[in-house]
Amino acid sequence: MSRLLESYAAGRWYAASAEGDPLLDAATGEEVARISSAGLDLGTMAHHARTVGGPAIRDLTFHERALLLKELAAHLTGLKDELYEVSLSTGATRRDSMIDIDGGFGTMFSYSSKGRRELPNDTVVCDGDLEQLGRTGVFLGQHVYTSRPGVAVQINAFNFPIWGMLEKLAPAFIAGLPSIVKPASQTAYLTELVVRRIIESGILPEGSLQLLSGSAGDLLDHLGVQDSVAFTGSAHTAGILRQHPSVLHGGVQLQVEADSLNCSVLGPDVAVGDPEWDLFVKGVVTEMTAKAGQKCTAIRRVIVPDAVAGEMTDAIAARLASISVGHPAEESTRMGPLASLGQRQEVRKAVEALRSSCEVVVDERAVDGDAERGAYMSPVLLRARPGAVEPHDVEPFGPVSTVMAYGSLEEAVTLAARGKGSLVGSVVTHDPQVARTLVLGLAPWHGRILVLDRDDAPESTGHGSPLPMLVHGGPGRAGGGEELGGVRGVLHHMQRSAIQASPDMLTAITGRWTRGSQRTVTPEHPFRHSLATLRVGDTIASEPRVISLEDIDHFADFTGDTFYAHTDPEAAAQNPLFGGIVAHGYLIVSMAAGLFVDPAPGPVLANFGVDDLRFLTPVKAGDAIRVTLTVKQITPRSSADYGEVRWDALVTNGDDEPVATYDVLTLVAKEA
Amino acid sequence: MSRLLESYAAGRWYAASAEGDPLLDAATGEEVARISSAGLDLGTMAHHARTVGGPAIRDLTFHERALLLKELAAHLTGLKDELYEVSLSTGATRRDSMIDIDGGFGTMFSYSSKGRRELPNDTVVCDGDLEQLGRTGVFLGQHVYTSRPGVAVQINAFNFPIWGMLEKLAPAFIAGLPSIVKPASQTAYLTELVVRRIIESGILPEGSLQLLSGSAGDLLDHLGVQDSVAFTGSAHTAGILRQHPSVLHGGVQLQVEADSLNCSVLGPDVAVGDPEWDLFVKGVVTEMTAKAGQKCTAIRRVIVPDAVAGEMTDAIAARLASISVGHPAEESTRMGPLASLGQRQEVRKAVEALRSSCEVVVDERAVDGDAERGAYMSPVLLRARPGAVEPHDVEPFGPVSTVMAYGSLEEAVTLAARGKGSLVGSVVTHDPQVARTLVLGLAPWHGRILVLDRDDAPESTGHGSPLPMLVHGGPGRAGGGEELGGVRGVLHHMQRSAIQASPDMLTAITGRWTRGSQRTVTPEHPFRHSLATLRVGDTIASEPRVISLEDIDHFADFTGDTFYAHTDPEAAAQNPLFGGIVAHGYLIVSMAAGLFVDPAPGPVLANFGVDDLRFLTPVKAGDAIRVTLTVKQITPRSSADYGEVRWDALVTNGDDEPVATYDVLTLVAKEA
Repeated sequence: MSRLLESYAAGRWYAASAEGDPLLDAATGEEVARISSAGLDLGTMAHHARTVGGPAIRDLTFHERALLLKELAAHLTGLKDELYEVSLSTGATRRDSMIDIDGGFGTMFSYSSKGRRELPNDTVVCDGDLEQLGRTGVFLGQHVYTSRPGVAVQINAFNFPIWGMLEKLAPAFIAGLPSIVKPASQTAYLTELVVRRIIESGILPEGSLQLLSGSAGDLLDHLGVQDSVAFTGSAHTAGILRQHPSVLHGGVQLQVEADSLNCSVLGPDVAVGDPEWDLFVKGVVTEMTAKAGQKCTAIRRVIVPDAVAGEMTDAIAARLASISVGHPAEESTRMGPLASLGQRQEVRKAVEALRSSCEVVVDERAVDGDAERGAYMSPVLLRARPGAVEPHDVEPFGPVSTVMAYGSLEEAVTLAARGKGSLVGSVVTHDPQVARTLVLGLAPWHGRILVLDRDDAPESTGHGSPLPMLVHGGPGRAGGGEELGGVRGVLHHMQRSAIQASPDMLTAITGRWTRGSQRTVTPEHPFRHSLATLRVGDTIASEPRVISLEDIDHFADFTGDTFYAHTDPEAAAQNPLFGGIVAHGYLIVSMAAGLFVDPAPGPVLANFGVDDLRFLTPVKAGDAIRVTLTVKQITPRSSADYGEVRWDALVTNGDDEPVATYDVLTLVAKEA
Repeated sequence: MSRLLESYAAGRWYAASAEGDPLLDAATGEEVARISSAGLDLGTMAHHARTVGGPAIRDLTFHERALLLKELAAHLTGLKDELYEVSLSTGATRRDSMIDIDGGFGTMFSYSSKGRRELPNDTVVCDGDLEQLGRTGVFLGQHVYTSRPGVAVQINAFNFPIWGMLEKLAPAFIAGLPSIVKPASQTAYLTELVVRRIIESGILPEGSLQLLSGSAGDLLDHLGVQDSVAFTGSAHTAGILRQHPSVLHGGVQLQVEADSLNCSVLGPDVAVGDPEWDLFVKGVVTEMTAKAGQKCTAIRRVIVPDAVAGEMTDAIAARLASISVGHPAEESTRMGPLASLGQRQEVRKAVEALRSSCEVVVDERAVDGDAERGAYMSPVLLRARPGAVEPHDVEPFGPVSTVMAYGSLEEAVTLAARGKGSLVGSVVTHDPQVARTLVLGLAPWHGRILVLDRDDAPESTGHGSPLPMLVHGGPGRAGGGEELGGVRGVLHHMQRSAIQASPDMLTAITGRWTRGSQRTVTPEHPFRHSLATLRVGDTIASEPRVISLEDIDHFADFTGDTFYAHTDPEAAAQNPLFGGIVAHGYLIVSMAAGLFVDPAPGPVLANFGVDDLRFLTPVKAGDAIRVTLTVKQITPRSSADYGEVRWDALVTNGDDEPVATYDVLTLVAKEA
């Protein structure tokens, strides 16, 4: 008898109190492992996540969490060979495994990098601009995101036992949430192996990752308002989860990513021989055969112009003929078996249903490999008869696609929309107007759209690949969820709240200096302070400097910026905004730097940028400007000996009117 | 018999085929109107919205839609007196009506202004930065929001018949969605009146607003993937809606805003006599009595330090004694009746339930007014016994609040969290550390938090007022939804999609120039073009200019920016980023302006700002820089004879390396 998979629960590995169900090798039918969660205390797992894992993660800043992910991804990369070996039993070819294994680690690397570049080195995220809620500015609004003191339950599909786990785990971890991972049973042995390697590494804080091998039992009964369930799988199971009392009445947040009837549309501009013709054929065949078509993002509906529907069908059929089906370990194999005999039966049932309104263009054929014990199935291509309903409703989760024809672009959009919401669509065209019409028509029905042509083909990652920086999910049938999308995927796990307070209170709450709150004019110039001693609110208030007409003239001569508003009194008088000669905006910020800079070498290394510069009041000759520069935000870089300091710059005139506002971005050493 | 309220459906007013149920005056019990939707064809309403209203709205840009909202709000403001008069029957005092009527119009004005300032004058919204998906930049990702071709169904609560409608209508309209409004029956006569005035005005395109007076019948059966339901009301009804097949399986998006057990927490730093003490007392009493406590945002739980719980309870009780209850039209009335006798019965039932674990501090007393036929009820204050459960679970939707005591700040947060998710909490303290601890503890449980102290009190809008620019909604019991929040509320109605394409395709699809796509070097300098002839992609490619050491020296002298990296060769050589003298960043952008500016008067009126300036490669003496300036986005202002042009600026050196990138913002005349 094979090994019983274990769960990792509340800090230890747990073997179920039952024999468990056998999990069979996709290609040979041999027993790989057994699985059961009998006797596992799921309430304790949820409690452990909330009381041990969550607090440990939330003790870290976003950057610290991100660095752990990077360390973990690098560690696991070193263990790839073992994972590739075990992955064969799932039916995955080497190329299939790459999507799952390298794709999963790539997602962690990407989140690590996004987390450090796009989130503060802190535990609270400010969202959007400050809102002034009253006339004088003593009452402000600021939206913030905070971490939920809950647990993220992740119920994954069988097709990507590693990527499926990591694409959910990475954003949840950065958001400060501990995860309980429940893999689909069929391929859970691979997930169990990765989790084992993660736990052994000791890189993640205890409690941040638990594994539930086997049935989810009553887990949802133990969840509440601060907990969430992210589910990837069938629309049917999603419907059941939506009806759970914890979701209906208990405030548990449910996020669904379900299979969908994704389409690929060929533009009417594409003719045989165009590069786009071949790109389309290749795209369809790749999506039908990669992972044996068992991808929620695979192309199920091939939407092509009437005029070329026959030719295109033939071209796809011809290319499919070259796909060799066989054992995933064989070099010659282009497509392995489905995950199980049960899956194959489901797909064949779906093909039967499609036959009622479609003609079979390419039917199942004999394959290399033991088709009795192995779940082999060669690709099937159908052609929909006009008005066919089934291709928009029946999802064959395998190497099956249906070609359908359209007349006008509007008709193409209507056909695509009949899928009732999809994860991804693709548009293959070289005509920008066709692209615009199709993409804007398809967009409300899709979470992602690939526009493929000769220009982006060299770098295109293809129709079927979700990327960590782009949202993954779709409306309607696709589940209505949204995962990944870089920081978006992190924020979905956090609570957004509007905070109304005085400027000083907002500064205390967000850790970021808020305009209107106290400024600390330090005895020493703040440029003398390293991050070790610099504080939010530290301020330089400069002396005034009069901008003379000679300054303006000279600046125009020197820079060559002789715009009439700076040089021609009569023309400038006609300008509706100025009514006379004004100083250059660039002159003002240059002079302001002269007023705030402390020249001697010190911890401030460079000014690397300026954000949100706005010129509010024109400066005329004779106006005296002064600048107030205040430390707004300090972001130490976790992997460097310096960090970023964002300064609030306010330039005012002699009447204390604001002349210009902006943020100055500098790099400052951590130690003096 | 009173008048039968009508529905506005598919372009005409419809009277039901039944007598209808009577709606009674809250104070007198007299019949005000009758209501029924018998015979109304709800499928036709949904179809009309999708085929007539939606397309008409989406023919307009965001700015055009926003301007219509402003026009409508101004028009309705002129009809306020009539609305105030009718509002009396709902039990609302003049102050209550102000929240509903002026608050509703204010929300429209705010959305009009936000829509024009924060959205493009277009129909597609770009979300976030461009993502480079490959090495060479030919394959990019851009998230966009597009309008759904569906209908927004809005099911509103009885307490705010006007604001409740407009706070949902305004963001939906700007998002491009037609609305079907279903007011709660009890106060539907006021909603019907406003809708009548809106339709009469002819300001909104036909089909963008329909009214369903009476039962929603089978409306949800007619909804699909692109449709949404926004519901405000009880958690019980929300649970029923969540189980509707259209929501469970049909992809209808449901957004819930339910009543919640909001709390107000007094900081341990506040002592009798402090300004915050009085602010707290006033806040609690205002929230208990405004709208007779029938606000989803009212304070139900008063959380105060152990040490002052008795004193605070007495202070609230004393102030409550001064609240005069009576007919809403009477000048002396501070609090009117509840909306109906049925509502009063519900509230009294809730008070009964609370008595099991609370002491009654202020009980119901006799009131001025006919308490037999009018739904009068004086405020009730309770004090929870330690460990009381009911105050966290039972919601009395009327003038009722419960005081409870805490020891540590952690205990205060735990008490607040027992409400299982609320719309709003408030924290009254003058101690920034107390504020930070409480706010960060409460935030995951709340959609909005007010921090009130002596500093923001002069402008504070109070605990109970949702504001259009801040999110309204909360996790868990509060429904898990999010409304308002400025543009956030608009985007919730749209679909976000990731578009993967070449730069040229992205430019065509988004209407915004994408870095890497074609530039059109125009024969005439683009500064010679008004908005009438300027096109996205129009480009100036400058001549090179050598930056000499003299230029750098001179700039340092002239501006006073003598930072060592520009002036001291030995010190600059030590700088880890520069390794020698470099030009000032401000010198580079100043010189760049000199290279791209066309000086003569023309359509370009001013440079009003710069965004996202980053210095990428240091410029050393002798480097030749040039600048390429390309029209990135054109935003005509709907109410001015000019608009905003955003230019992509790219400064390169002699090796074609990027030296600096930024956006230049200019104002340009519409006509030459």
